[in-house]
Amino acid sequence: MRASGRNFRARLGANESGFGPSPAVTAAIADAAPDAWMYGDSACHDLRAALAAHHGIPPQNILVGEGIDGLLGNLVRIMVAPGDTVVTSDGAYPTFNYHVAGFGGVLHKVPYRDEHEDPAALIQRAEAVGAKLLYFCNPDNPMGSWHSARIVQRMIEAIPDGTLMVLDEAYIEAAPEGTAPPFDIADARVIRMRTFSKLYGLAGMRVGYAIGAAPLIAMFDRIRNHFGMGRLAQAAALAALRDQDWLAQVQRDVAQSRAVLREVAAENGLHALPSATNFVTIDCGRDGDFARAVVREMMARDVFIRMPFVAPQDRCIRVSTGPEAEMQVFADTLAEVLRALR
Amino acid sequence: MRASGRNFRARLGANESGFGPSPAVTAAIADAAPDAWMYGDSACHDLRAALAAHHGIPPQNILVGEGIDGLLGNLVRIMVAPGDTVVTSDGAYPTFNYHVAGFGGVLHKVPYRDEHEDPAALIQRAEAVGAKLLYFCNPDNPMGSWHSARIVQRMIEAIPDGTLMVLDEAYIEAAPEGTAPPFDIADARVIRMRTFSKLYGLAGMRVGYAIGAAPLIAMFDRIRNHFGMGRLAQAAALAALRDQDWLAQVQRDVAQSRAVLREVAAENGLHALPSATNFVTIDCGRDGDFARAVVREMMARDVFIRMPFVAPQDRCIRVSTGPEAEMQVFADTLAEVLRALR
Repeated sequence: MRASGRNFRARLGANESGFGPSPAVTAAIADAAPDAWMYGDSACHDLRAALAAHHGIPPQNILVGEGIDGLLGNLVRIMVAPGDTVVTSDGAYPTFNYHVAGFGGVLHKVPYRDEHEDPAALIQRAEAVGAKLLYFCNPDNPMGSWHSARIVQRMIEAIPDGTLMVLDEAYIEAAPEGTAPPFDIADARVIRMRTFSKLYGLAGMRVGYAIGAAPLIAMFDRIRNHFGMGRLAQAAALAALRDQDWLAQVQRDVAQSRAVLREVAAENGLHALPSATNFVTIDCGRDGDFARAVVREMMARDVFIRMPFVAPQDRCIRVSTGPEAEMQVFADTLAEVLRALR
Repeated sequence: MRASGRNFRARLGANESGFGPSPAVTAAIADAAPDAWMYGDSACHDLRAALAAHHGIPPQNILVGEGIDGLLGNLVRIMVAPGDTVVTSDGAYPTFNYHVAGFGGVLHKVPYRDEHEDPAALIQRAEAVGAKLLYFCNPDNPMGSWHSARIVQRMIEAIPDGTLMVLDEAYIEAAPEGTAPPFDIADARVIRMRTFSKLYGLAGMRVGYAIGAAPLIAMFDRIRNHFGMGRLAQAAALAALRDQDWLAQVQRDVAQSRAVLREVAAENGLHALPSATNFVTIDCGRDGDFARAVVREMMARDVFIRMPFVAPQDRCIRVSTGPEAEMQVFADTLAEVLRALR
């Protein structure tokens, strides 16, 4: 935006929720603003208690942090010493890879299989290289694909000794029932990551949380920025969690917007991949250079979208769901761009 | 507060600004609340530009981060490998020490001298142990004392080769003119820390910034949480910086409140130390056990204050400035507590 000096006509590149936060959340933020002079609770007591009640697990199995990005950074710091190996999918979340590299870990990348992360191959690789961490995002970013709870649970059961599975569920609220396995807080083989940045519409407040075995959760207290969670961020997340009706409405809006994106893709002779997230990944049917040209030309027309980094997934573009007006801008601009490029 | 199940009658323990943020800031937060679904700018462009203009230095010498705590953590990570030595004052900021320990650094602590940090001894120790970092807080927390810009500048000139001075100026807006040396952005021997958490009244938003040589500032980009600064935090800090009239009013309020605390101390036969901060450290005239009893009894009466951790400074209590009503609660409760303890 700064490069062009113009505002985006449609902001569909960062998988934010264009449907916005709940009005109850914006009211809670405004109400809390005069209290911004006070530090937030370093233990995030109220928010953790509410999350515990929401998920039916004890608060000591929950850690609130500065978005999943911040939690991943601290997790890697705890688990990965220089030279330790870590397994992820080739083309999966770059910020996780950045943290691993930052703490001297050695990344092993497993290719996607049919636009899905490949559970069997990931487990096999983790075993072969003695991985400290195995990162698995379900539903997946950037492909929007997902595995069922049954497959994820089988994966957890198959985790090699000495490996911790990082189950990133940033998009879980957009996924069908039966995608998340039940919580098993006694299971020290997996730590799960959730966020208020996606369907709850609070990317600008930086609130994520981890769910895991109590001894692992307690280890974060040795290194985390104890007053890192601001007072307003905690208030906003608490209000968001309390307004489950808003979340349900956003889930319906996201589903409808995914359908629109599928239609727009089809109308343009492109194939939209099935999605369990708040974005749709569209196969542009040619190579990475073509998809990069589509992204570039969309950006030149002030429509912000992104795309997978790694071949062969880089033949796709990734488009966030959003309100009707943005969807219309996307549809019109995509048709224009494809005409120009063809 | 949670332990007692009651609210504090006076919240004077964390050196927050009870005078609150500017009404322009609370309005800016409320205005930005509906935009909370969007990530904040990862480069904090607008805020850095405003800080650059405010301080008359280029933006590439400024890094915005999740409070000084967050910045100190990243700085220690950049500079301190396991076994590296770090110098600070004995009784100075515990969170800095926590970060040093967390990254395996070895702390060397220099005693205070006449309730001031001791520049000559700190420099000498840094040279003797080959310190990577030398932490110096001016004005000082927890004593409220300060050194003049001339002395600080002499200290910078005397920094040994291979040592970086961390000049924590969290309280600088409460200090008299002539406490902060002019910025010299070419000087790679020092990095300075500032915050919106104290006089700007935004502890609950977590916004600090570092000022230093451009190559050092750039190094943070390799490891920081790039989207860690939320959209509302940036908007709030920008609005706070723009309302310098509010800051000036808070500076007057703080000065007046310090005078009240001095009088209250004197009325109770105690000695308030001179302060260039938004708190006043009061010598209780006996030993650490007595001061701890004072703190405990004040807390039992729902008045939140703190005290220095280390002898002989632990004969003091530390009381934040605040509005008249809180000062009155403090005065009444202190008299009551001292009667009970004597």
